[in-house]
Amino acid sequence: MLLVVNQRAFTVMASPLRLRSIARKACLRCYSSSALQWEGGISMVQGASRGIGLEFMRVLWSSTSIPELSEFLWCDKVKQLLEKNEKGHVVATCRNPDAASGLLHLKNRFAERLSILPLDLTIESTIEASAKSIRERFGSLNLLINASGILSIPDVLQPETTLTKVEKSSLLLAYEINAVGPIMVIKHMWPLLKVGRGSGTERDVAVVANLSARVGSIGDNHLGGWHSYRSSKTALNQLTKTVSVEFARKKDPIICILLHPGTVDTDLSRPFQRNVPEGKLFTKEFSVQKLLGIINNAKRHDNGKFFAWDGQQIPW
Amino acid sequence: MLLVVNQRAFTVMASPLRLRSIARKACLRCYSSSALQWEGGISMVQGASRGIGLEFMRVLWSSTSIPELSEFLWCDKVKQLLEKNEKGHVVATCRNPDAASGLLHLKNRFAERLSILPLDLTIESTIEASAKSIRERFGSLNLLINASGILSIPDVLQPETTLTKVEKSSLLLAYEINAVGPIMVIKHMWPLLKVGRGSGTERDVAVVANLSARVGSIGDNHLGGWHSYRSSKTALNQLTKTVSVEFARKKDPIICILLHPGTVDTDLSRPFQRNVPEGKLFTKEFSVQKLLGIINNAKRHDNGKFFAWDGQQIPW
Repeated sequence: MLLVVNQRAFTVMASPLRLRSIARKACLRCYSSSALQWEGGISMVQGASRGIGLEFMRVLWSSTSIPELSEFLWCDKVKQLLEKNEKGHVVATCRNPDAASGLLHLKNRFAERLSILPLDLTIESTIEASAKSIRERFGSLNLLINASGILSIPDVLQPETTLTKVEKSSLLLAYEINAVGPIMVIKHMWPLLKVGRGSGTERDVAVVANLSARVGSIGDNHLGGWHSYRSSKTALNQLTKTVSVEFARKKDPIICILLHPGTVDTDLSRPFQRNVPEGKLFTKEFSVQKLLGIINNAKRHDNGKFFAWDGQQIPW
Repeated sequence: MLLVVNQRAFTVMASPLRLRSIARKACLRCYSSSALQWEGGISMVQGASRGIGLEFMRVLWSSTSIPELSEFLWCDKVKQLLEKNEKGHVVATCRNPDAASGLLHLKNRFAERLSILPLDLTIESTIEASAKSIRERFGSLNLLINASGILSIPDVLQPETTLTKVEKSSLLLAYEINAVGPIMVIKHMWPLLKVGRGSGTERDVAVVANLSARVGSIGDNHLGGWHSYRSSKTALNQLTKTVSVEFARKKDPIICILLHPGTVDTDLSRPFQRNVPEGKLFTKEFSVQKLLGIINNAKRHDNGKFFAWDGQQIPW
């Protein structure tokens, strides 16, 4: 998004001074429509230690994820907002904070604006403890991103290439991590999101964004395989839709959306990138920028919908 | 279906003799398009001890489920086919055959044409043992109906009315029984279905019919609630679609379909029948007749589709 804005800025006929002014405005606008929208609020990224989750952390509160920004170092307003704004706060959760080097690096830079909490999706008491900690410190939540997910674990879980390789243990493990876990997080964060709504941000509702995947679409399933991962994401889609219906019926100031990040160059996808068409393997930076754009543009009528990185709705 | 045919028979102007002839043909045609299509083959009903599964057993191999039949006692051809044909066979599976009084009653009547095997969906070795038993005795399978399912168990699993009541244990239990179990059954019966295809029946392909439910549809989810049951059926839908894609890609002579039986008066639905609109609570007989009609009419292009009792496709 920023890249496009840059291109526009540099293709207009303008004096160097005007060019600088346009670029600064474009840069601010870009941030305003992505990370900075959440500056005044409390955000939580569950599964934040690596992959897309960590990238959400970086984009939400750091300039380091956007290489183009280095061209605008003079843009001190942005730097200030990124590095000195003390209104907004991000809570990052992961299983083992001590081993989360990426998060610890961010913590060094944004100590006051970043909390790292231990949360293991498979242990409900850790979800409750995180909710308690957020309630006591902030009292509310404006944005919850469930970014965790498993596709494979060596010797434990492999995406199935045929029905004969489908194992009960793999299916149940995928369901537990990819479907049950995120819903239990929403369950415990619900009261905080209700209080938080959009207050402190530019929005009127809180947002829950669950990372799903296009392969979770039944209507779009033309290849087969990947039984555990596929059906766990499908279950997540149904659970998210179910939760969104309850939020709407109760007129809670919260919307839930499902996001497909594309095939992103992360640890999750690395063993399976062989067949990805050229140009279709996204960097984390690119995907997260796109997803954050969708999150920021999401309105009440988007509650319960399933979007790809490019904003297109995906069939169930 | 039979009732409609009867009405037609009795509204035509015809002599008693012609009437009797029409009625006999109608009766035969009805059976031909439902139960008798499978007379020459080997069928399996998983989850056959009660509810819809038991009713499938009764309709597949017994006249007792069709009250209208008593009007046609003279129709000895049908009786013969039902009670004396020894070509076709049905394998009924359930967790505890000794306690399955409905099945034992059928066994008394159709001893030679009915096998009852113990199969606990949660114990894969019992599925393998059933497959081994069928392979040794028959060598093939033409029809597999996965009829089992859980919605509630007192003090263990209750359909959730709100997110705050969602428990990890309930979700995983529903996934294990409603989604994982049926797929593990297909996994182990696959070689038998490949051999069986349509041979011995009037069909060119074997059929796998999984009992799903409309509440498993994400697109049709306007009420929310029932998180465990809903999302387990959604996962089943995705798994069935995934399996159907593999069967089609490998050109296996097998199709898989998903069926919504309507709200049927069974133990499963009994605690939740309060809000069922008048005329929308079906008898088991009615629903199973309808579902068997869909199974019998299913063609290769129906592979991987999700049908309601009335033949309408349900959105994912």
